[in-house]
Amino acid sequence: MAELQILNLLLVLVAAWVGGMLAKRVGFPPILGELLIGILLGPALLGVLETSEALNTLAEVGILFLMAYIGMEINFKDLGKASWAGLLAAIGGFVVPFILGYYTIIWFDGTNISALFVAIAVGVTSLATKSRILVDLKLLDTRIAYVLMAGALISDTLALIIFAGIIGFVDSGSVNAVGLSWVAGKAILFFAFAALIGIYFFPVLGKLLSKAKSINRTFHFTIMVIIVLGFSELAELAGLHGILGAFMAGLFIRDGVFSRQVFKEVTGVFHDMSIGFLAPIFFVTAGFHVSLEVFQTDLLLLILIILGAVVGKIVGTALFYLPSGHGWREGLTIGTGMNGRGAVEIIIAGIGLQMGIISTEIFSILVFMAISTTLTVPLLLTWTTNWLRKRGELVMQDARNGYLILGANPLGIYIAKQLQEHNEVVLIDANKDLVNEANEQGVTAIHGNGLKEETFHLANAINKKTFIALTGNSEINLLATQLANNSFYIPNKIVLMSPGENGAGLNLLDPMNASSMFASKTDMTPWAYKISANEFKEKIAQVDGNCTTREWVKQNGKNQDILPVLIMDESGHKRPFHYQDSISAKEKVIYLE
Amino acid sequence: MAELQILNLLLVLVAAWVGGMLAKRVGFPPILGELLIGILLGPALLGVLETSEALNTLAEVGILFLMAYIGMEINFKDLGKASWAGLLAAIGGFVVPFILGYYTIIWFDGTNISALFVAIAVGVTSLATKSRILVDLKLLDTRIAYVLMAGALISDTLALIIFAGIIGFVDSGSVNAVGLSWVAGKAILFFAFAALIGIYFFPVLGKLLSKAKSINRTFHFTIMVIIVLGFSELAELAGLHGILGAFMAGLFIRDGVFSRQVFKEVTGVFHDMSIGFLAPIFFVTAGFHVSLEVFQTDLLLLILIILGAVVGKIVGTALFYLPSGHGWREGLTIGTGMNGRGAVEIIIAGIGLQMGIISTEIFSILVFMAISTTLTVPLLLTWTTNWLRKRGELVMQDARNGYLILGANPLGIYIAKQLQEHNEVVLIDANKDLVNEANEQGVTAIHGNGLKEETFHLANAINKKTFIALTGNSEINLLATQLANNSFYIPNKIVLMSPGENGAGLNLLDPMNASSMFASKTDMTPWAYKISANEFKEKIAQVDGNCTTREWVKQNGKNQDILPVLIMDESGHKRPFHYQDSISAKEKVIYLE
Repeated sequence: MAELQILNLLLVLVAAWVGGMLAKRVGFPPILGELLIGILLGPALLGVLETSEALNTLAEVGILFLMAYIGMEINFKDLGKASWAGLLAAIGGFVVPFILGYYTIIWFDGTNISALFVAIAVGVTSLATKSRILVDLKLLDTRIAYVLMAGALISDTLALIIFAGIIGFVDSGSVNAVGLSWVAGKAILFFAFAALIGIYFFPVLGKLLSKAKSINRTFHFTIMVIIVLGFSELAELAGLHGILGAFMAGLFIRDGVFSRQVFKEVTGVFHDMSIGFLAPIFFVTAGFHVSLEVFQTDLLLLILIILGAVVGKIVGTALFYLPSGHGWREGLTIGTGMNGRGAVEIIIAGIGLQMGIISTEIFSILVFMAISTTLTVPLLLTWTTNWLRKRGELVMQDARNGYLILGANPLGIYIAKQLQEHNEVVLIDANKDLVNEANEQGVTAIHGNGLKEETFHLANAINKKTFIALTGNSEINLLATQLANNSFYIPNKIVLMSPGENGAGLNLLDPMNASSMFASKTDMTPWAYKISANEFKEKIAQVDGNCTTREWVKQNGKNQDILPVLIMDESGHKRPFHYQDSISAKEKVIYLE
Repeated sequence: MAELQILNLLLVLVAAWVGGMLAKRVGFPPILGELLIGILLGPALLGVLETSEALNTLAEVGILFLMAYIGMEINFKDLGKASWAGLLAAIGGFVVPFILGYYTIIWFDGTNISALFVAIAVGVTSLATKSRILVDLKLLDTRIAYVLMAGALISDTLALIIFAGIIGFVDSGSVNAVGLSWVAGKAILFFAFAALIGIYFFPVLGKLLSKAKSINRTFHFTIMVIIVLGFSELAELAGLHGILGAFMAGLFIRDGVFSRQVFKEVTGVFHDMSIGFLAPIFFVTAGFHVSLEVFQTDLLLLILIILGAVVGKIVGTALFYLPSGHGWREGLTIGTGMNGRGAVEIIIAGIGLQMGIISTEIFSILVFMAISTTLTVPLLLTWTTNWLRKRGELVMQDARNGYLILGANPLGIYIAKQLQEHNEVVLIDANKDLVNEANEQGVTAIHGNGLKEETFHLANAINKKTFIALTGNSEINLLATQLANNSFYIPNKIVLMSPGENGAGLNLLDPMNASSMFASKTDMTPWAYKISANEFKEKIAQVDGNCTTREWVKQNGKNQDILPVLIMDESGHKRPFHYQDSISAKEKVIYLE
């Protein structure tokens, strides 16, 4: 046990945790803090921490699992959906800095191979789209966010494929035509074989596993670990690198193949094990290999690489983005958003260093490039998005859209009719009469049990953005919302909660990130009656100034006889009135009286 | 990455998985299969697999997490509850084989220290109580199961404390009084310090974490990993072994300290990571160090150690168990159940080998001892329990008992009154009038929301064995049952499901392992009315022969006007009538008409 050096492992983990937490607190991805604290505490500066064989082993296993997790997170459908615009941005943002990086190294008398390595590292884009910055800048529903997401996915996949080619090339050592085609042939064989297994064998395995009743999550997890390592070994046999196999395995381990519940749980374990434990060891120890001497010996190269990375990425993205017709300003904005380099870049640089392809100096430069480009993202992206916003050029877009409403009661039909002016709306109800009534009134309604996955599938729940549970029974509403949340990941959930002390509490909404319909507990029965008897008035109220829905209810709801149903914005778009929303001065509230 | 040797890791994992699965299939703990396949494929026989630095690192991290997980699984309350009988069994089952093991080695001219190591290994008891065997032999609710559980816990804790002492002693090297007291002092300091942190600091940390909203499971997991490694390092600083620290950390990380949900999820990740991935590497590679030559060179010692282990454990347990007054036959049965050696023994033996305290020969003997004693358990325990059963001496006992019933409606009160003749029963209802009514009728009832943890705490849910959800609303019943299952681990759950196509389906019961009340969907309202109006007859029906509750309903339920409520056994004990039960020929069904 002496070799494990628990103290060393402990210190590295604590350092990673502190560094990551601080970085997150100021709005950067944890990897930035992990790299910086590695540089600070490692041999480069304070020399408190050092690497060891044990740490290397754990770090290597960590990046295998991290790549598998990154693969699991990528949904083929998302990649397929990635628009023409996303593809343009990805290619431009990859190719231009790639070329700049390559020729910079060649110009500095670097080898061909090391230039290719640097080129990939400079071309990569970090999946910063998932970071807090998009939320902070309120970009989540904009076209920019979707292009960024698609761009990062495509650029990472591109980078990994080119990386595969280079690794095969390095290992073969030969540069003649026969040798090269042998290398390429093996790589193609690997990808074809992996795809065959992933597409044909995994679904069979998934079915077998779902039939075997006695097996549990741990069993599934063990099988996934074996699959990930198996693919890694296959990749190595094909002369590629293990991380490519792990990534491919992750791509094919997805929720269509294994049950949604199992997939979600196992992905969670991979996430915790890699991001919460093993991968940070890799990033902190990556900092250990950084030499600060490059600031003296190779300052010009350092500056040129960083400049090439930043300018190449931003200008390249904007240039290639022009044919999309979305304008050069949006192109620049997307370029600034894609400018960060993250896990994949550091992993590739680390492998280059380990294989002796790049020197410690080049490795150090690549780490500083990752740090400085990541640092630019919040600043530059804030500038560019504010610029777009001021010009009114921030285009909203959403891959998921439309409403799924449980409960085809009069209130449900009323709301559906209003929302379907600008959105796709589907109602579900287990009562056939209500469903027929809704269809007669021109609202799409599906007959089925709202607590069963089948019904949600029929209603195409996986593409819906908002779920409204509007039956008179709070508990049915809650159970259905759990299903919408856990199995269909519907982002917005609005739940009608009925009053009554025997009922479920509002506290049950929080873990699902759901909001309460009408902004307060409401007994639907009288309103449903009034609507079906046509004994109500629909009124529209101007709002005095920005306020939250809660404040609006406080101000206007003394009179118990009104029900705020929808909020309408300037352009006439309506959205449901719920607890966690705010109303701007230019919007109106539609309420029933 | 070359050092990681993915292929080697992959093969070891596949071997562990196959070995573990085969062992499980034939009713043995996976560790048995892992050891055997390690011996088979390792240098001892086929020589296909070999160990490496990387495997050692992963295995060492694996046993740290495994010990932490074992600690997490031990509940202080369980240890506290461990009866006088359990303590007797644990001490007898530890001390007698300990002495036999010690003197066997001394007799064979072994060193004092190696004799002590072997003695501990022989004394340890594996936590086989969790294995399938208890279920297969239908022992889960017997006094034997509880004594076995307590015995294994106490004996493992005892073994680890003595192990701590020996490790300190080995490291110090000195044998004079000052040196020894220094060693003992450091160990005591460690335990005191660990206990102080665990008892005073952890709850504060838990509260801090529960207040910070933005942190997630991964954050908690990282903190727990840091705590486990921190305690390990503390233990090493005190001259003890890291696994003791990990075990202590696990003991103090428990669900009173961190929220139940977080504790459950993090424990799950520790479980999957250790048992599903890292720890099997340790057990397979343990098999690599086994030498088969001991069958020639040290056959007598091998036989004596195994004999001493088996006879010492069984006879020692039975002897020390006599003062409990439960008879020598039950003592022998418990001895056979405690005869297995498992993870802790192999870990201790492995550490002994690594530290050079025991030779490869002794290590091999200890592994074969673990294998052969584990093999005896199913066979011997089946014999002894059948023997007890035939003599009618198999005593039932349950640490959790009594009923928690949600719904103080007339039917709930009626059932509570019947059940409380032999059991503790608590009713919960959110309606104060119903609660008062129940209390007036002599039934303990608590006023509170049945969907909130507080109410369950008030009703002491954690010690209840059966939860009955009996409100007229199936969805409330389901949500409350989820709470009973997820947060209070109540083993038996019976749920009243109302008919109606809008309602929740019976399929929702399966994941919670719950059963449907009255064996079919039932509308409670008419029965509640009949009971409160006293317009019903209570009838008792003899059963023709063994049948399931479903069959009984088919045979007797054509007449829709009866409601089977309870089953009464020979001795007049009543239990609720539900879907997943069977009625034996000597029992009676109580039904309403």
